[in-house]
Formats: sequence, C-alpha cells, structure tokens
Amino acid sequence: MYIGVIGAGRCDAKLFDIAYEVGRLIAQRGAILVCGGLGGVMEAACKGAKSAGGLTLGILPSEDRKHANPYVNVVVPTGLGEARNALVVRTADVLIAVGGEFGTLSEIALALKVGKPVVGIGTWELAKGGRPVEAILIAKDPHEAVERALRVSLKS
Amino acid sequence: MYIGVIGAGRCDAKLFDIAYEVGRLIAQRGAILVCGGLGGVMEAACKGAKSAGGLTLGILPSEDRKHANPYVNVVVPTGLGEARNALVVRTADVLIAVGGEFGTLSEIALALKVGKPVVGIGTWELAKGGRPVEAILIAKDPHEAVERALRVSLKS
Amino acid sequence: MYIGVIGAGRCDAKLFDIAYEVGRLIAQRGAILVCGGLGGVMEAACKGAKSAGGLTLGILPSEDRKHANPYVNVVVPTGLGEARNALVVRTADVLIAVGGEFGTLSEIALALKVGKPVVGIGTWELAKGGRPVEAILIAKDPHEAVERALRVSLKS
Amino acid sequence: MYIGVIGAGRCDAKLFDIAYEVGRLIAQRGAILVCGGLGGVMEAACKGAKSAGGLTLGILPSEDRKHANPYVNVVVPTGLGEARNALVVRTADVLIAVGGEFGTLSEIALALKVGKPVVGIGTWELAKGGRPVEAILIAKDPHEAVERALRVSLKS
Repeated sequence: MYIGVIGAGRCDAKLFDIAYEVGRLIAQRGAILVCGGLGGVMEAACKGAKSAGGLTLGILPSEDRKHANPYVNVVVPTGLGEARNALVVRTADVLIAVGGEFGTLSEIALALKVGKPVVGIGTWELAKGGRPVEAILIAKDPHEAVERALRVSLKS
Repeated sequence: MYIGVIGAGRCDAKLFDIAYEVGRLIAQRGAILVCGGLGGVMEAACKGAKSAGGLTLGILPSEDRKHANPYVNVVVPTGLGEARNALVVRTADVLIAVGGEFGTLSEIALALKVGKPVVGIGTWELAKGGRPVEAILIAKDPHEAVERALRVSLKS
Repeated sequence: MYIGVIGAGRCDAKLFDIAYEVGRLIAQRGAILVCGGLGGVMEAACKGAKSAGGLTLGILPSEDRKHANPYVNVVVPTGLGEARNALVVRTADVLIAVGGEFGTLSEIALALKVGKPVVGIGTWELAKGGRPVEAILIAKDPHEAVERALRVSLKS
Repeated sequence: MYIGVIGAGRCDAKLFDIAYEVGRLIAQRGAILVCGGLGGVMEAACKGAKSAGGLTLGILPSEDRKHANPYVNVVVPTGLGEARNALVVRTADVLIAVGGEFGTLSEIALALKVGKPVVGIGTWELAKGGRPVEAILIAKDPHEAVERALRVSLKS
C-alpha cells in the first residue's frame, strides 16, 4: 500500500503538525508514504513517518537529489518539473491532501481523473455552475484521514 | 502567440459551439491553437481554428497519432498519459478553459501554479475555507474569452 | 508523414550543410520535419526545410520557447530535459541521424527499441561481442538518406 | 549512493547469474539498487540485492505496479513508457550495464550525455568513423563492475 501525501512546499506550524501526524499514522499502519519530496507539508509528513520507522519515497521535480527533504528514504529526482505530479499520483493508491496550493490542486485533479480516491484536510473546495462537486473525501483530523484513506483504497 | 484550449474529450452541442467559436477567433487573431488533441472541446476548437485557416497543435496522451482529432495539423503523440497535461500548459502562453472535467482542472491548476493566465467559460469554481479563490478570469462568451486571453498574455 | 532529424546541438560546417540539405529535401517531399528544436544539426535541418517552404516542429528539453532555433515553426517547450528525446522519437515515423553525440545515440536506441527505422549519415556504429549490429540504415548523402527514410517508413 | 543496473527484460542464465551477483554486491556495499523494475537482468539484480538485505527501487514504464518483478521494494509506475529510462539514469549516481538491448543502449547514452559513469559487462561497443568510442568502463566480472562503479561515482 502506497499513500500519497500532497500539500504545499511551505506551510505554517498548524499544517506542519497535521501533516506530521498524517505521516506518522501512515507509517504506523505499515504503508509506504509517497510525496513530492520537498519541504512544507511533504517534509512534515516524511518526518512523521520516519518517527514511526516508516519508509518514505520522494518524487522530485528537479534532477538534483539534494533538493529532497532530509526525511526522504528513497529519492527519484525526475527532472520533469511539475509533470512529476502525475508520477506522485500514479505511485499512490490513495492521496491525502493537507491544505495545498495550485500544485496540490493539480494532483487532486489528476487523481480524480483516473478514479483514485483523495482525502482532504483543509484543502480545496470544488464547484461548477454554483454547485459543489464533492469528489474529495473530507476528514476532520489526521486520524480520520488515514483511516478513510486505508478504507477506500482497500475497496478500490 | 500560442493559446491553449482545454476542456473535456466529450461535450454537448452547446459547449461544442462555444469551443468552435473560441478556436475560430484564435485563428482569426493569428495565434497558434494548442490543445490535448482529442475529441469534444478539443476537436471543436481545432475545427473552428481550421475554418479560419489557423494552425493547430495537438499534444496527445497516447503514442498513437491516429488518436488525434481530424482538425489537428501537428500532432505530438507523447505516450506520457495525463502527464502530457503539463506540456499543453508549458506550450501555451495563456489558456482558455471551456467547461471541463478533472483533466481540465489539472491543467488549470498547473497553469496557475506557474503563473500563466487562465480564462474560463463555464468552468470550475475554486474555493478554500469557504472563500472563493478567484484565480480564473471569467468570460461570458468566446469573443470576450479570446480578447481577454490576448490581452493578459501580452501583459505577462 | 513526420521525419525526425537528430544530431548534435553544435556541429561543423560540413555537417551543417548535410543537415540543411536533408531538411530541404524533407520539405520538398512534403513531410513535416520534427527535431529537438535546438542549434547545430537541428537548426541546419530546420533552415533547409524552411528554405523549401516546409513545416518544422521543435520539441525542446527546456520550458522556454526562446531556446528554439529561429527556423522552428511550432515549438513544444517540454521542460522534460533529455526525457524529451522519447517524444521526438514518438512523433517521427522515421529518423535520420546526421553525425551525433550521446543524445543522438539515445534517440537512435529509443527508435530501434520500438522498431522505428533509423537512417544514418556519418553517425554511430554499434557492435556487441566484437560483431557489428547493423540496425542503422547507412546513407552516403542527404538525397539517399531522405529517399531511404521515405521508402522504409511507407513500408512500416 | 544509488547504483543503476540496466539490461534487457529477458536474459539467459549466464547473464542472470552475473546480474544477480552484481545486485548482491551492490546491497552488500550498502548502496540502493535502482532499475527499470521489470524481468530479466532487472529481476536478477533485484533478487541478488534482496538476498543480501538490500533496498531496491523499480521505475516502471507502465502505470501498473503489478508489472514490477517480485524483488522490487519500492515501485514507481511512471506511465511514461520508454521515457522512464531518463528517470532511471537521473536517479542513479552510476550505472552498470549487464548485456543489454536497445533500451539499455538508450540508458547508456543518456547517462554518458550527462556525464554519469557507466560500467559495462558484455554490453554495447560504440564507434564512430571506424574508431572505437571508449566511453563505457569495461568490467570482466560482477566484483570488478561494482568496485569500479563505487570508485568512479565517489570521484564524480
């Protein structure tokens, strides 16, 4: 089982704590954590996963392994720029979005396009024609997010 | 000047007409039309552009040139799957979203991530924390969409 | 019909003249010329194609359209680095290698891997275990190269 | 340290044994083994690495994790087709080619293009204009290959 954690490369302390806890719980449940390998939410989640002895995979936009945060075990420096977002999505069975800017939105959209479930904490809200599109599964905290992610990905 | 037209691979007659007119106006203004090369909105826009003697570029997800709609002049069969969305965005100076499903949303997000303007007709509405994120420039019709696209991309 | 011209981004006057003539003949025969969009052999071939009113497509490694040589009509700034070599190969029906360094060798190999014919003028010679691997069709001049390329791609 | 092992997806028993031993020695020396994740030489090397408790990373052409051989720990199902060869090269500090067909040749070429060392056992021989191009470091057996790979990548 691979769980993707997606979110911005910079974040405040509150999102950092949430992402850390998400990462910790992913590792505790025995899943591999995959992310974009950079700072912010990605670093927090990797740090949390490492604190619980987990395995973390970082798929970088650049060609330079040094751009990975220090809590990534296995680094793939793609050199593809933001096109690497598709690879984060392809590698994951399910994604958890923690906050997130436009890069995260692109990953959410790519996942939904191919039918992979996305769980969100404090992330984007989507609508068309004034009507909400409820494609992202909302979780109120890290525990609910990881449990939902495990549950929906086992089903799919 | 390269204008991207993004939208779903299948669409109803109303969106088809809008996309056709967007394509026609792009060609009339002398810009190259770039898109994902498939059917629906992409085909309509290419057909419109060809009707005005324009040049159309289709960047396909598959490796097979035959998957392009018949109004594409130059086909790049990338074989990258949805990762090719990043290439549509990189090739365009500005994007016009006509309707759109999740694939389109990923292109909108990738464009906004790198600061490329996106004009939308009947497309996604974004929000975070209950507050709208007004990053997409709204146009009410094809004429306004193309004029806005030309104006903002000349500025940037 | 799309004919790829591959070769180094810098070249001497002799290779420039050969590539120019290859490009000119491709355009004269009505094929679209696809290349990596940069200087050297790529620029020479595009210049030749333009001299005969042809259409040229440049698939760049960088995200910056300005890196294309001035004889490219349609530019796809992929941002994929050398991974774009696979796209040059996928877009072409057949490839003509003029001279070439390691980047060209990677394109030759990718083409042969998927069974696309490669015609070579003064390019790499391959061997394994001391025995030549004659997978590249040798041409002695631009005219023979373009004629062979047209002939073999029609067959395949 | 990441050492790439490249070679064909099918191979005879002799190459299998060589690749197995290369993988085993890589793991024994504490490096991560990266490869294309499929069968043949890739599977042999992963199996060898696992026998010594190593960590293996497989970067697949397809989007389907199930295509990985059973000895891959961390799978990145890129969906990029042969364009993923560039990612194997970018992830590795140094590459060891064991035998190899055209796909392997493309990886050798991409590595040499960016100045990454390539060690070869029974692999391609390159020439231009009738003169050998000795860019691949030749090793006579797995032990020499891994030792050379470690030595040259530490220097670079």
